[in-house]
Amino acid sequence: MDIKHPYLLFLGDAADQLAAKTAQGIKDWRPDWCIGQLRLPGCKADLKLPDLTIEEARAKGAKTVIIGVANRGGVFAPSWVAVMLDALGAGMDLASGLHNKLTDIPAVAAKSKELGRQLFDVRHPKGDFPIATGAKRPGKRLLAVGTDCSIGKMYTALALEKEMLKRGRKASFRATGQTGIFIAGSGVSIDAVVADFISGAVETLAPANDPDHWDLVEGQGSLFHPSYAGVTMGLIHGSQADALVLCHEPTRKHMRGLPHYPLPDLKDCMALNLKAAQLVNPAVKFVAASINTSGLSPAEGDAYLAKVEKEIGLPAVDPVRTGVGRIVDQLW
Amino acid sequence: MDIKHPYLLFLGDAADQLAAKTAQGIKDWRPDWCIGQLRLPGCKADLKLPDLTIEEARAKGAKTVIIGVANRGGVFAPSWVAVMLDALGAGMDLASGLHNKLTDIPAVAAKSKELGRQLFDVRHPKGDFPIATGAKRPGKRLLAVGTDCSIGKMYTALALEKEMLKRGRKASFRATGQTGIFIAGSGVSIDAVVADFISGAVETLAPANDPDHWDLVEGQGSLFHPSYAGVTMGLIHGSQADALVLCHEPTRKHMRGLPHYPLPDLKDCMALNLKAAQLVNPAVKFVAASINTSGLSPAEGDAYLAKVEKEIGLPAVDPVRTGVGRIVDQLW
Repeated sequence: MDIKHPYLLFLGDAADQLAAKTAQGIKDWRPDWCIGQLRLPGCKADLKLPDLTIEEARAKGAKTVIIGVANRGGVFAPSWVAVMLDALGAGMDLASGLHNKLTDIPAVAAKSKELGRQLFDVRHPKGDFPIATGAKRPGKRLLAVGTDCSIGKMYTALALEKEMLKRGRKASFRATGQTGIFIAGSGVSIDAVVADFISGAVETLAPANDPDHWDLVEGQGSLFHPSYAGVTMGLIHGSQADALVLCHEPTRKHMRGLPHYPLPDLKDCMALNLKAAQLVNPAVKFVAASINTSGLSPAEGDAYLAKVEKEIGLPAVDPVRTGVGRIVDQLW
Repeated sequence: MDIKHPYLLFLGDAADQLAAKTAQGIKDWRPDWCIGQLRLPGCKADLKLPDLTIEEARAKGAKTVIIGVANRGGVFAPSWVAVMLDALGAGMDLASGLHNKLTDIPAVAAKSKELGRQLFDVRHPKGDFPIATGAKRPGKRLLAVGTDCSIGKMYTALALEKEMLKRGRKASFRATGQTGIFIAGSGVSIDAVVADFISGAVETLAPANDPDHWDLVEGQGSLFHPSYAGVTMGLIHGSQADALVLCHEPTRKHMRGLPHYPLPDLKDCMALNLKAAQLVNPAVKFVAASINTSGLSPAEGDAYLAKVEKEIGLPAVDPVRTGVGRIVDQLW
């Protein structure tokens, strides 16, 4: 999978700004790739990008239209399909992060085939993945793990890539979820892979590399989330991490979607992740904690970071408020 | 899924007895369900069942033909397809544990539809599974876990079911792999489920039940197998086990398929499985070890069981040589 950029971000008739959070993530992390947005009547989201028609976007060099919002009711409205067909006709590919597949829309599938365009359904991994071997491979890898889902793992990995590249180090963000895939232009929606191939898919995603190159692997789920821990476990083994970063959000009341499950203790969470990661790399270690303190006042946030730092004996940063420089300082 | 019995076991042109191990497992555990075998010229396997034609099997009441051997080269030979079509024509369903699907054979798919017969591709779970909730549910559940794959987990769970039913207790074997599914007549090939739904599928497979009923859940993989640990993790959480049994084979030199990975230490293996299982049931405990000592002499086997028993402080049995009665004695 290699999604060509620049992108035109299609926002459809998004009900609110939150419905466009995937598109917002792309714009935040790859502003240079985002030529404009295309909004239909009634759209309540705005990425503060130029509003462009398909023809205008094409004239400015857009290569792919990203379906960057959820579709209401799980069906593609005729107004959406019309935009897709126009985009294909104008010479662009389409990429979607929705559960419904572009390839299941007969008119879109037929036109893309006729014109030789590509359709990317990034939530639906294509092709066969190998069974993981667990064999030692060169290159360094860092995996973001967390106390819960949706707790800053992608953000942390992307911030680390940015900081490392700024310092002239060799680094690649490796995407394991839909938003990350649009940001990287490639990747695997690891939670949609067949169970037997979770680790094998990650071995493919973060392959052997230069000894001084770091893959920054986007984490998924949590070993302490009873719905998704299998995904996390396979990701830990497939990534064969040298370094782990613990992601956490201190105001989270319970595990995402499960009011009856409290968040784990930080040190307990680190111990279990480390134990799992040691199976494929006995030398793996935690290097830092990455905390989203946006729910705290600046003073509370600083105090919380200091408390965690003392508790775990490693740097504790907030990627937004303090940056991740102190994590990169830990990487050899 | 509900595969109707009695079965006719189709052995095709199996290259040797090992190629028929799925069929052998069905015959061993459900002899009353197995009316006969159907072998093609060149078949080197023999289950010591009556050799029956499709017509003879039907006359004796067979309801399903089980494709109980691997197909050579991964394709269905015309001679196999002819038997399938005859079986459908005679009023029987078909069930296969192969990677290739029956539903992908056009003539078979068409005839089954025309005649209203069912095709079961047990390695390909059908339908949508829910995301796991981890909510506490009534009924008791025992999960067989192991130091490695293919180390006696299915055998142990089936032996426990047999012993419990003999004692008049309420118990159900819950199948998570192809052979187990034929033996139970239902189940889910858990390693073929999409990663996000591993735990949810197991919650469906082993649902709420009477307080004094035990589900005996077939384990898969091992938390210490870097290819498959994600499957095992999801299975542990989905099963919400009250009791765990550790399965092991003392002459195994390395993790299955991975010469560079040694087997874990027994107590280390128990600790990690227990930690994982406690997330969804803090009261879970190990009740016994189930050891396959067939690679040892009787004296060595006895000594090994005694050694393990002392090491872990729990009963250690060999289901074949000592039976599993002492495990059932532990179940409340």
